Amino acid sequence: MNKEKNLKPSKELPLGFVDRQEKELLIRDFVISNIKEVMIRYGFQYLETPSFEYTDSIGKFLPDKERPDEGVFSFKDEKKWLSLRYDLTAPLARYMAKNYLELPKPFKRYQLGTVWRNEKPGPGRFREFLQFDADYVGTKNLQADAELCVLISEILEKCGLNKSDYTVKISSRKFTDKLFEKLKIKSKEQISTTLRALDKIDRLGWEEAKKLLGEGRKDKSGDYTKGANLKNDQIKIVENALKSKKPDTKDVLEIIKIFQDYNFKNYEFDPSVIRGLEYYTGPIFEVNLNFEVKNLKGQTIKFGSIGGGGRYDNLVKNFGNFDCPATGISIGLDRLVFALMQKKDFNIKSKRPVIICVFDKNKNKEYVKILNKLRISNISSEIYPGEGKLKKQMEYANKINSPAVILYGENEIKIKKVTLKNLKSGEEKSVAIESLSDEIKKIIWNYSQVCKV
Amino acid sequence: MNKEKNLKPSKELPLGFVDRQEKELLIRDFVISNIKEVMIRYGFQYLETPSFEYTDSIGKFLPDKERPDEGVFSFKDEKKWLSLRYDLTAPLARYMAKNYLELPKPFKRYQLGTVWRNEKPGPGRFREFLQFDADYVGTKNLQADAELCVLISEILEKCGLNKSDYTVKISSRKFTDKLFEKLKIKSKEQISTTLRALDKIDRLGWEEAKKLLGEGRKDKSGDYTKGANLKNDQIKIVENALKSKKPDTKDVLEIIKIFQDYNFKNYEFDPSVIRGLEYYTGPIFEVNLNFEVKNLKGQTIKFGSIGGGGRYDNLVKNFGNFDCPATGISIGLDRLVFALMQKKDFNIKSKRPVIICVFDKNKNKEYVKILNKLRISNISSEIYPGEGKLKKQMEYANKINSPAVILYGENEIKIKKVTLKNLKSGEEKSVAIESLSDEIKKIIWNYSQVCKV
Repeated sequence: MNKEKNLKPSKELPLGFVDRQEKELLIRDFVISNIKEVMIRYGFQYLETPSFEYTDSIGKFLPDKERPDEGVFSFKDEKKWLSLRYDLTAPLARYMAKNYLELPKPFKRYQLGTVWRNEKPGPGRFREFLQFDADYVGTKNLQADAELCVLISEILEKCGLNKSDYTVKISSRKFTDKLFEKLKIKSKEQISTTLRALDKIDRLGWEEAKKLLGEGRKDKSGDYTKGANLKNDQIKIVENALKSKKPDTKDVLEIIKIFQDYNFKNYEFDPSVIRGLEYYTGPIFEVNLNFEVKNLKGQTIKFGSIGGGGRYDNLVKNFGNFDCPATGISIGLDRLVFALMQKKDFNIKSKRPVIICVFDKNKNKEYVKILNKLRISNISSEIYPGEGKLKKQMEYANKINSPAVILYGENEIKIKKVTLKNLKSGEEKSVAIESLSDEIKKIIWNYSQVCKV
Repeated sequence: MNKEKNLKPSKELPLGFVDRQEKELLIRDFVISNIKEVMIRYGFQYLETPSFEYTDSIGKFLPDKERPDEGVFSFKDEKKWLSLRYDLTAPLARYMAKNYLELPKPFKRYQLGTVWRNEKPGPGRFREFLQFDADYVGTKNLQADAELCVLISEILEKCGLNKSDYTVKISSRKFTDKLFEKLKIKSKEQISTTLRALDKIDRLGWEEAKKLLGEGRKDKSGDYTKGANLKNDQIKIVENALKSKKPDTKDVLEIIKIFQDYNFKNYEFDPSVIRGLEYYTGPIFEVNLNFEVKNLKGQTIKFGSIGGGGRYDNLVKNFGNFDCPATGISIGLDRLVFALMQKKDFNIKSKRPVIICVFDKNKNKEYVKILNKLRISNISSEIYPGEGKLKKQMEYANKINSPAVILYGENEIKIKKVTLKNLKSGEEKSVAIESLSDEIKKIIWNYSQVCKV
């Protein structure tokens, strides 16, 4: 028995990957349609780059330095290495470089696409996400950065959130540049270790992140991470700088001025916003949800960031002699949908079909006639698609949450009337075929009021 | 110089992958919205499984036997091998097995998703496709198979095709089973080599495929493929069988009877339909476009199949002791969209924004006021997002195909009137801000008549 069991392939998914059901997918479609509508209105072009890029084209700007060869899924092609994209920004830079002469400058594009991170699998750590990105490529005008924050807000509000439900936090890499000057640290390695430590404050809290700023930290699993080796007085300087509520870099001040023109108030300057990706050079943003959300274990958590972005003025330049400053924002749609599902009572209409029961296979033509009538009236419907007797058919109808079944036996066919059974109330009614669609619509309408799927 | 060039990452895409532009993506969205509408009406549930599965879970049912370890993109995880899905059917079988007790039987699901094939790259051979799949899992009722053909037709017609534009070809694995009996060949290997040869008739023509039925064939590149070693009289039997226009297997006959109930006539029995995937056990279908299409080189080609499917009664059984017959159909959306774009003149409205020109950065607030008015009126619009002077702004507006620009200089701000310039006609008009949206809508409407993007 055990031996046979071993021969069967696994029914499980690899860690970090999930199956997604109808309700989540329909809400995601709703979010995506809002995104597309806003993107068109804001004048962005729709683009899709492929999942794979040459590994050297997209580089690796992920913060996961402890495992330098990992973080991405890579694959040896006939000649070169290919990688699955880990974001939509690096491929955009490749696209811009490839089509530099033909593209308008600035080039405003949006993209929806899956990205992959080959992270250490663990509960709640996904390795596949759906992202939405909007970018301005080829401009250093900070109106672009400001408008990215405005448009994300418009999208979130179209999805049903109030102003109190979210905050756009802004800061700048210039802020940390100044900080490093003050700290008198210049080594590239120490700077990037410090940045990574700062980026972890949100997740670990200040006391633990402090260890990463100092000598190092042992995590729960016993793994030790070397720190940035800052001295105590340096760490004190960092702590004070992070408490600052007043922006003092020119870029952030200018963006705030533009926000006023847009009458956009839902932002907050927060120097503890660091963003993990290495390619940022100027203003950075983070979009945070403020309401409480339950995780999969039912524990209430502060949900935090659903995305962010920033200015990356040197990324396109990697490919050649293009001076091509750029800025962009990404939203993690799976996380946004997860939170939205808890915040909003999505009254998605029942899409489950009405079932036409099968009494006699030879009467299939009669069943199909009714089926076609219903489908033409835009009613989700099907002839029972299995092989069982009536009892099994009713069980199936209940299992799929069908609103009603249609019984059309020999006697009923003779008088051209069906028996329509409402599966919520149990009520049965004899209905002429001409008025069947109308009767069913009444049931579906009531049904969707009761059952807020 | 050369040395520096080598240091730059590649701007190119790996072979077999492409960037997709707005027009194609908007038409694809149109196709997808038709698919979703039909799927709901037919009572299918929306599902999404992840891109990766354990390699052993999805097996490898691809016909690419010459390179047994290839065909899929696989990655070594911490413990086990993961593969990117090569279709949506094998993951569905895994999903069904994993959730067998909870799912309704039959389970009708549809999915839209990318699949990957690690094929030998070459012109026109893609390694990433977007597929649409609809399946009935847990039923041997042939009404399911018949309805798959009917629903694909409904989708194609909603997308703008006529009945003469496509044909659903049907056959059955039972047909080839019978043929092999007649040929008295029993070795599994010889059977599968023969099937692979038959599957290539469409692409290579009968004379070349005949070599693969016999001793073997050398292709243009000089690669030699061993044949199925059939004798000449056996090949003659195959040739005659393939000419048959009359179905003689029970399953196909029953499906044709059900087609009559649906008044569905757009099918053709064609024994040369083989379908490459190994897991089929019964009826198989192929959806063919009949109209001529130009390939990327501008050559007129017979486009052929955009997808197909069939019954796979044993796939779920691989995972355990489930008796779970199933049938399904897949459509390759990229190919369908490619053909549709040539067949139909999609009058997609211009989505390019109206540009508000920047004369004085200090007047940004005035520009934003106009911008907000336009966006609230659902007009795609933007303040010029770059840094150039007026001449550069006009160049940008023309480059992005903008329908109109708004000039709002100091004098114009004083009298609260803008100059609206129609970029198609060149006409300029002084317009009060209250009537600006209406004036622009007139231009956009005319514009989209002229410019059938």
